[in-house]
Amino acid sequence: MINRLTTNQRAYLAGFLDGDGSIYVRLKPNTDYRFNYQIAPFVVFFQAKKEEDKFRKLIALIGGGVWRERKDGILEYTLNRQADIKDFLQQIKKYLILKQTQANLMLQILDRKKKMKDRQNFIELAELIEKFRTLNYSKKRIKHNLTP
Amino acid sequence: MINRLTTNQRAYLAGFLDGDGSIYVRLKPNTDYRFNYQIAPFVVFFQAKKEEDKFRKLIALIGGGVWRERKDGILEYTLNRQADIKDFLQQIKKYLILKQTQANLMLQILDRKKKMKDRQNFIELAELIEKFRTLNYSKKRIKHNLTP
Repeated sequence: MINRLTTNQRAYLAGFLDGDGSIYVRLKPNTDYRFNYQIAPFVVFFQAKKEEDKFRKLIALIGGGVWRERKDGILEYTLNRQADIKDFLQQIKKYLILKQTQANLMLQILDRKKKMKDRQNFIELAELIEKFRTLNYSKKRIKHNLTP
Repeated sequence: MINRLTTNQRAYLAGFLDGDGSIYVRLKPNTDYRFNYQIAPFVVFFQAKKEEDKFRKLIALIGGGVWRERKDGILEYTLNRQADIKDFLQQIKKYLILKQTQANLMLQILDRKKKMKDRQNFIELAELIEKFRTLNYSKKRIKHNLTP
């Protein structure tokens, strides 16, 4: 469950997600699923372990996600339930500037996924998911190594 | 000159700065300055070149800074005038969560810098500036290389 956010919280979290978050969908090969792929959507926030207290305070605004500490000392907070992702993005999307396209694409994918009936629907969905690759590609190459 | 920001813009920009911005002061050896150091404060925002249009839209909210394109394809937008930094941080600081300490430290440094009279004042100021190193240290090591 995602918290009901105030207007300021929505604007703040939109800025934070635009600055350092990620919205994406993974297609994972998995024969337990229909059409042999699991469709796994994510909204992820990152922060250095040393900022854990403040980061937890920030994340407490949201609710609903899961924590992970990576081996490189980065904390990740992930929304991975479809209802949570949908609720969160619907609350903040009008405040997004950099990632509004991704948010709308994600909402479209979640909607199509729900209505998916046949292999043709699945292929169309996979094509939408492929769009994230183009949208997100350059982001991963930003390295903050020039900040003193 | 920094624009007069709405409440939502303040909250958004605080989130964006918390996510991906940087607040710091450089002490640059320079014999043209009193005590042989230039005190250079900065607030910087970063973004990949491919997001230039959206990033410029975002930055247009603020006003007052300078653009730079780094050789690695990252765009930087920097506030480097003291009056601008002060005005901007005063407008957004109550919405900051991760970098509120840095914002307050910067405001304190700008205030002390203005009142600086003698070498003792300069040394105290240099000690305050040194605090940024501890506050910002881990941030530069975050690499977004696990985002697909």
